[in-house]
Amino acid sequence: MTGEEARERFAAGRVARLGTVDPRGRPHIVPIVFALDGNTIYSVVDDKPKRTVELQRLRNVRSNARVAVLVDRYDDAEWAALWWARADGSARVLEPDAAEAERAIALLAARYPQQRAAGAVLAIDVERWSGWSAR
Amino acid sequence: MTGEEARERFAAGRVARLGTVDPRGRPHIVPIVFALDGNTIYSVVDDKPKRTVELQRLRNVRSNARVAVLVDRYDDAEWAALWWARADGSARVLEPDAAEAERAIALLAARYPQQRAAGAVLAIDVERWSGWSAR
Repeated sequence: MTGEEARERFAAGRVARLGTVDPRGRPHIVPIVFALDGNTIYSVVDDKPKRTVELQRLRNVRSNARVAVLVDRYDDAEWAALWWARADGSARVLEPDAAEAERAIALLAARYPQQRAAGAVLAIDVERWSGWSAR
Repeated sequence: MTGEEARERFAAGRVARLGTVDPRGRPHIVPIVFALDGNTIYSVVDDKPKRTVELQRLRNVRSNARVAVLVDRYDDAEWAALWWARADGSARVLEPDAAEAERAIALLAARYPQQRAAGAVLAIDVERWSGWSAR
């Protein structure tokens, strides 16, 4: 799969999984909803009681900015249709009142009307798109 | 969510995402199918043309055994039903002819009749189960 095709498939995904590395070198994964703008992925922690998780994710990228984000399709009944698309890049933590954060929250609200965004926005500058497809 | 509930939800999942850390400290994620036996997760690379990806995953755990594995539920129409369950642990790469590998492949074949297992088996000894639910 070309990088451009991986980017297109990723962009259409509704949920992704974010991989970060903690200060002790251990991997961490959480599901995220996201919006893609060019080659920047935006994600914001929803206003739900999961403060500890949020802090882990943010703490990780503050000590190691490298992240991987995965979108994939799984179908028990049709393994020939499986694919995944991955973004490798670097994360920045935006303050809620930054102009870029406000734009990100607007993009996310347009894509997920059900989200009540709150807190810091994660901006991930993608350096490499890759993917795999069973077909 | 208690660790036991996270383990139960995880066990029922059909697909998971495996997070590892590469020798340069960068996170890596791929989707995997798996079988859970007690507190050990087994996964084997399917017989498909993705040798490079397999090598990345195995190379990573050989240099840093720490892994995170995530099972989650996403539903655009019902965010109140979202949840995730995560396993944090250490990975071992089994040789295909090891007794534990043969047992793992049998467990995987029972769970995924469509899989044609080939190559090294990853055994992940889970040290911590955690999870989150919107409800």
